Amino acid sequence: MIGVGVIGYGYWGPNLVRNFNEAHSSRVVAVCDLSSQRLGQVQRRYPTVKTTTDYRELLSDPAIDAIAVATPVSTHFELAIQVLRAGKHVLVEKPLTTTVEQGERLLEEAARGRQVLMVDHTFVYTGAVRKIRELVNGGQLGKLYYYDSVRVNLGLFQHDVNVLWDLAVHDLSIMDYVLNARPEAVAATGIAHVPGQPKDVAYLTCIFGSNLIAHFHVNWLAPVKIRRTLIGGDQQMIVYDDLEPSEKVKIYNKGITLNNGEGRYQLLVGYRSGDMQAPQLDTTEALQAEVGHFLECIERGCPPLTSGKMGLRVVRILEAANHSLTLCGRPVELHWEVD
Amino acid sequence: MIGVGVIGYGYWGPNLVRNFNEAHSSRVVAVCDLSSQRLGQVQRRYPTVKTTTDYRELLSDPAIDAIAVATPVSTHFELAIQVLRAGKHVLVEKPLTTTVEQGERLLEEAARGRQVLMVDHTFVYTGAVRKIRELVNGGQLGKLYYYDSVRVNLGLFQHDVNVLWDLAVHDLSIMDYVLNARPEAVAATGIAHVPGQPKDVAYLTCIFGSNLIAHFHVNWLAPVKIRRTLIGGDQQMIVYDDLEPSEKVKIYNKGITLNNGEGRYQLLVGYRSGDMQAPQLDTTEALQAEVGHFLECIERGCPPLTSGKMGLRVVRILEAANHSLTLCGRPVELHWEVD
Amino acid sequence: MIGVGVIGYGYWGPNLVRNFNEAHSSRVVAVCDLSSQRLGQVQRRYPTVKTTTDYRELLSDPAIDAIAVATPVSTHFELAIQVLRAGKHVLVEKPLTTTVEQGERLLEEAARGRQVLMVDHTFVYTGAVRKIRELVNGGQLGKLYYYDSVRVNLGLFQHDVNVLWDLAVHDLSIMDYVLNARPEAVAATGIAHVPGQPKDVAYLTCIFGSNLIAHFHVNWLAPVKIRRTLIGGDQQMIVYDDLEPSEKVKIYNKGITLNNGEGRYQLLVGYRSGDMQAPQLDTTEALQAEVGHFLECIERGCPPLTSGKMGLRVVRILEAANHSLTLCGRPVELHWEVD
Amino acid sequence: MIGVGVIGYGYWGPNLVRNFNEAHSSRVVAVCDLSSQRLGQVQRRYPTVKTTTDYRELLSDPAIDAIAVATPVSTHFELAIQVLRAGKHVLVEKPLTTTVEQGERLLEEAARGRQVLMVDHTFVYTGAVRKIRELVNGGQLGKLYYYDSVRVNLGLFQHDVNVLWDLAVHDLSIMDYVLNARPEAVAATGIAHVPGQPKDVAYLTCIFGSNLIAHFHVNWLAPVKIRRTLIGGDQQMIVYDDLEPSEKVKIYNKGITLNNGEGRYQLLVGYRSGDMQAPQLDTTEALQAEVGHFLECIERGCPPLTSGKMGLRVVRILEAANHSLTLCGRPVELHWEVD
Repeated sequence: MIGVGVIGYGYWGPNLVRNFNEAHSSRVVAVCDLSSQRLGQVQRRYPTVKTTTDYRELLSDPAIDAIAVATPVSTHFELAIQVLRAGKHVLVEKPLTTTVEQGERLLEEAARGRQVLMVDHTFVYTGAVRKIRELVNGGQLGKLYYYDSVRVNLGLFQHDVNVLWDLAVHDLSIMDYVLNARPEAVAATGIAHVPGQPKDVAYLTCIFGSNLIAHFHVNWLAPVKIRRTLIGGDQQMIVYDDLEPSEKVKIYNKGITLNNGEGRYQLLVGYRSGDMQAPQLDTTEALQAEVGHFLECIERGCPPLTSGKMGLRVVRILEAANHSLTLCGRPVELHWEVD
Repeated sequence: MIGVGVIGYGYWGPNLVRNFNEAHSSRVVAVCDLSSQRLGQVQRRYPTVKTTTDYRELLSDPAIDAIAVATPVSTHFELAIQVLRAGKHVLVEKPLTTTVEQGERLLEEAARGRQVLMVDHTFVYTGAVRKIRELVNGGQLGKLYYYDSVRVNLGLFQHDVNVLWDLAVHDLSIMDYVLNARPEAVAATGIAHVPGQPKDVAYLTCIFGSNLIAHFHVNWLAPVKIRRTLIGGDQQMIVYDDLEPSEKVKIYNKGITLNNGEGRYQLLVGYRSGDMQAPQLDTTEALQAEVGHFLECIERGCPPLTSGKMGLRVVRILEAANHSLTLCGRPVELHWEVD
Repeated sequence: MIGVGVIGYGYWGPNLVRNFNEAHSSRVVAVCDLSSQRLGQVQRRYPTVKTTTDYRELLSDPAIDAIAVATPVSTHFELAIQVLRAGKHVLVEKPLTTTVEQGERLLEEAARGRQVLMVDHTFVYTGAVRKIRELVNGGQLGKLYYYDSVRVNLGLFQHDVNVLWDLAVHDLSIMDYVLNARPEAVAATGIAHVPGQPKDVAYLTCIFGSNLIAHFHVNWLAPVKIRRTLIGGDQQMIVYDDLEPSEKVKIYNKGITLNNGEGRYQLLVGYRSGDMQAPQLDTTEALQAEVGHFLECIERGCPPLTSGKMGLRVVRILEAANHSLTLCGRPVELHWEVD
Repeated sequence: MIGVGVIGYGYWGPNLVRNFNEAHSSRVVAVCDLSSQRLGQVQRRYPTVKTTTDYRELLSDPAIDAIAVATPVSTHFELAIQVLRAGKHVLVEKPLTTTVEQGERLLEEAARGRQVLMVDHTFVYTGAVRKIRELVNGGQLGKLYYYDSVRVNLGLFQHDVNVLWDLAVHDLSIMDYVLNARPEAVAATGIAHVPGQPKDVAYLTCIFGSNLIAHFHVNWLAPVKIRRTLIGGDQQMIVYDDLEPSEKVKIYNKGITLNNGEGRYQLLVGYRSGDMQAPQLDTTEALQAEVGHFLECIERGCPPLTSGKMGLRVVRILEAANHSLTLCGRPVELHWEVD
């Protein structure tokens, strides 16, 4: 039985506590939050769980083997590094850190202690995203044309990071998992409408060495909620709509054919259209699968799917995107080391 | 009764002929196309209309007062300038020309002869777009936040212009009409997947002096057809979905409120949510309204809504976008003269 | 070249004239309507077609081989019987007649003269309905559970027939074609909201000898347009939504499984869920296919898909439904002769 | 602080326990279920709540003031009558009982002891249904034309009641609350596809004395989930789609106008079309509101919205519907006493 502590009981923390509580191989030992009101909620719901406003009590508690950090982004690095130094495994809310340099230091610390460092990129554990990876990896889409994502809604404004770090972070982790491709450069434009607050609308293009392009539209000021990704290949194309109640992934047997045309007005491009299919998806709650995976990685000493390395790759793109934002969209190159 | 000639009977020409034929104050005198098969169709449907493969017959025909040019973009300038020099009014398919310089020469020529030079930016004549302009102009949206448009589908590939000139041209004309605002710079990224063919996926950001941002996503390789525009203001927001059968325009009484928060974790941004309304729209066929407007401008000597000037503004943005595309998204400034 | 006359140039007549005009093996000789304004439209669009307000001119015109009757339902029988007696083939707008007895007399007359008597049940000629028949006939749905259809919208009120005869007539012809099953009884409820006018909302159940049930909801007073049919079988199920732009037919690999449960609280029914598939459909205009089929039946002397017999089966159900309506839903039995 | 006991911890019981647990004026004292596995779940989640397999322990527990009965329908009457006789208030899962006679006896028993007898018709407490009642009561729809509801999905098959008692029960309670009208007769058709099991597809028409008609389509064997109600009036019309994430209620300013036509072919009916509006709805969880209302009724001694009387009216319609089902749809009259 793995003893778990949770730091942060705001928006996401309650889901972590609930899932670690229901998992068979873990029990929640203690929850930390700065708000005594929220801790009161913990006590009502889980009378046997300890509560505290001082996270250091969790670090020093020998009954705790692993800690989940679900606090504002700006505190991730400081808390996670202390968790690792205290010899405990750590699950960090996304994004991993606010800079590449912080992320690299976390990876080093985790490697030194052979501890599990996992990032809470929850979407990777959904049935939809796992099915998409299966399709792309299986070659069913053929050569990839583009990856296009829209993730917009009204709120929730973050105060310490802009909308790319809050929303595009999901899509970047999905793309990393699904395409396994690393952009050579990024170009981002965006705007802040609330004085003193981060950018709330942003557009990010990822430029690859191949014929692939990726683009992300994120927005905290949209009147409707949209969660739609288009992935085009030369064989098939995918529409992934996370708001669809059941048919979240649709595979279109559509594309173009290239013909030898003659003369100036001959069409060179033909259109191919076939059936659409919506595969059945695993409907397990993603966070339940993720929590189970985290516990299994601890028990077996395996690296997680959403490892610190993946978390760092996402931060690297976001950091470059921030740089491009300050340059009004001028592309910024990315340098990837072999890992 | 205004005598009309039509050059080009391909994709759009039949719609022009049909509408000029049904209009009360015009009659179609002659149709020109390079394909005798297409001209055969004209003869079957309109036995009294003359057909020819030589457009110069239309230029010299005294029964023709106005000519509609519905040919590939690369030929617009050459044909339109000859129409104007022949002393006839001209309706040019969108986009007006392939360069700003060509557009300026057409405007000069039309001004010299006091002829009507109109661009076929059809969407401006739809009930939906006219309603949106009414809402924006009436101040109902408040201060504008963003204009975001997606126009994607499979095909039709153009051979002489890229996807921005084929699809974004619609959105740029709508934005010009609705917002009456001119971007200071543009940044565009895109990619071509078919060797030797123009870019088929592109993203365009328009940067304004104010707090406004505009973005356009166009794609010839999408598995589904999307025609959706989001327009955000600090009072209300619009979703314009041109594929909705009846409720194309939805107005959301949504937004944020700014409060004085205290302390580090106080929320500064609140969310405001109210009713949604879908106003009834005029359902007259846009091209019928447009053709009527063109004929009225000829009769009264008035400048059209989609004037050469508007067409030139759209071409100016597209030309800068092409430049930015070659620079991988680096922003390109736009210079506007007073007009 | 088959000479065609069209009686009635109101709502549907123009579509018939257009399609007979564009068909390769027919030409429109004359159009009859009581309104000289409508005949003026014919003259403008088709200068070579004769027009008249006296349908008898069509009956006696030796250049006319076949006549399409697109007039109010109450006139179908009288016109069609005269067309047949004049020795011409006839395409009758749906429903065939207002009574079974009239329908039987038309069938006799057509059989006597070996003429083609076809009913304009257009939906049978759509790619969607043909695909559904293929699926049902191929046994892909397994044993049929139910057929449920909703066809509602605002208007168009008919004055001589109620909403079942105007809207359910489509669904009954589709069901006849797809299921090839004949109900043993019908039960119908409905209501008229406009004094002196026919019932504008109605519900019709068809009861079969097997385990199948069919139900039809039709309504002229609905605020939204719905065209949705559910067809359930024990292997697969179909959702046919005629308003979907491209994926009109969706096949769900869903159903129940029956297990031997023990004890009072054991579940006996399990649920089976698999992929959904939307097959590609033929997108030819249904009326074009229908007109081609009518002309082919004339040339080859073959019975049409939507024969007089099918039209009569539909009228037989509608007549019984009217009877049940007057009995507030009491079921009315149907008697089918072998045909 | 009101002490609450819950009998039945199957599908719905956990939601009742959670809401009574989170309510300010109640605490959950004990939970009863026949399954020790389910009781184990209660113990893990609520370590301070007593558990038992013998419901009589709840009846005799002086710490318990009110009991919620969330067991199969066939046991409602027997359990509820004992709860009332034990002097406790009772919240009974819908439908109240399996017969009118049972329901009448429960009402008498509750009246005798002046106890609260409330039925768990949850939908009445949703923001959507309360808004619809407000609109109908306020006269905004004008004179009512029809009430049409579709509630279909795959499963969950019930073993002791048919699909009308499982699904239409929701719609009948909503209609009772919204329209406050009582049908004079009902006509129902349906079918059972699983041998030995209740009917899984059913259609129910309610016939009123006025010009109103109501119809309900319920189905446990549908491939898709639909929850849609149309309510038509002569001024406005409502579409209530419970699956819409935010705009569940849409109000259409649509209808017909009646004109004096002249002659046989003059149209008497015109169509009126205006804006559509989707009002903002209260998004409080319905069961939370309902539980609060139940507790308030106990404290203040007031009759609840979903009183035993309403529950009995719903059972009266269902009982008559069952009768009509056995008569293949023959209408069955309803007799209402003044209450």
